[in-house]
Amino acid sequence: MKIAIVAFDQFTDLDVFLPWDLLNRVRLVGGVRDWDVKIVGTEPTHVSISGLRIPMMGPIDEVAEADAVLFASGPSTRRLVQDVEYLKRFWLDSERQYVGSMCSGALILGALGLLSGKKATTYPTARERLAEYGVEVVNESFVDLGHVATAAGCLAGEELTAWVIRNLIGQEMVEKVLESVQPVGRGL
Amino acid sequence: MKIAIVAFDQFTDLDVFLPWDLLNRVRLVGGVRDWDVKIVGTEPTHVSISGLRIPMMGPIDEVAEADAVLFASGPSTRRLVQDVEYLKRFWLDSERQYVGSMCSGALILGALGLLSGKKATTYPTARERLAEYGVEVVNESFVDLGHVATAAGCLAGEELTAWVIRNLIGQEMVEKVLESVQPVGRGL
Repeated sequence: MKIAIVAFDQFTDLDVFLPWDLLNRVRLVGGVRDWDVKIVGTEPTHVSISGLRIPMMGPIDEVAEADAVLFASGPSTRRLVQDVEYLKRFWLDSERQYVGSMCSGALILGALGLLSGKKATTYPTARERLAEYGVEVVNESFVDLGHVATAAGCLAGEELTAWVIRNLIGQEMVEKVLESVQPVGRGL
Repeated sequence: MKIAIVAFDQFTDLDVFLPWDLLNRVRLVGGVRDWDVKIVGTEPTHVSISGLRIPMMGPIDEVAEADAVLFASGPSTRRLVQDVEYLKRFWLDSERQYVGSMCSGALILGALGLLSGKKATTYPTARERLAEYGVEVVNESFVDLGHVATAAGCLAGEELTAWVIRNLIGQEMVEKVLESVQPVGRGL
């Protein structure tokens, strides 16, 4: 199983790192061997909005081979959705793959035509832009369309990640992973 | 204001990145200019337990000048607490500074003598080791001793970070920061 998290410059830290940590627990806590999580981008490194530069583990073109693809968020999504060459590199098949977004990452899903005529959620500051793609923008933390899902508000990354794990493995693994990060005295 | 997050090889991703993201929001969302968050270590880069290599922003010796210092967690804390040369580099003054830990990071606080005869929390797998430092280990997500605090279970990083911001700035800023990461429809 391959999971790609799409990052870019000025990415929102938590929108990459919360899914990244939780998804890797399928391997570390759940003991699943066939499970490869990569952060992918257009450059060898990308720098977050908080100023942390991290290495990419592959180019965005690798999303074509992924079982699940999650788009991060950040102010640069507004620029990226105008970049036709960038968008063309995402060979996605939403019948075979699971494709999700955090916060303003939904704009990229919108630009790729994955949300036209459908419900989706995004960060409040990106609502109007998302609606321009013919999307019914709702005030919810998570919208599940089957093979496509949108989450909004950084901590909703937990719901988006659970959705990926549930679809690729099952609910038991979701519970194992989430239990391992709960505050002590509650989950443990 | 200077805040240092202490990382090392095999650090638990979320225990560094949740405080890192939230603390930087004091600057990004709260508009505070005099606010510098650094991830510090003993090498130019450290690699997380999930395999992400990140650059350090300074050496651990910088904790001496920080207003708040947070220790991350990971399996290597068991080795680090045996390393006298490592421990000697932490010049900490828990009357002036705020010193906190995530999960097994409490072992370093224990080894530094900051928890002797006091209550603290840690990840369940580190409880026995922590008790060896004369600590009363409790099954709680967060223990606040005034200038020293311990949190356990990755998502308790929210409580630890709130404690730092509350003490260095105030409760209003805590609410502003936490609101900005809540799932849409709840916090926003």
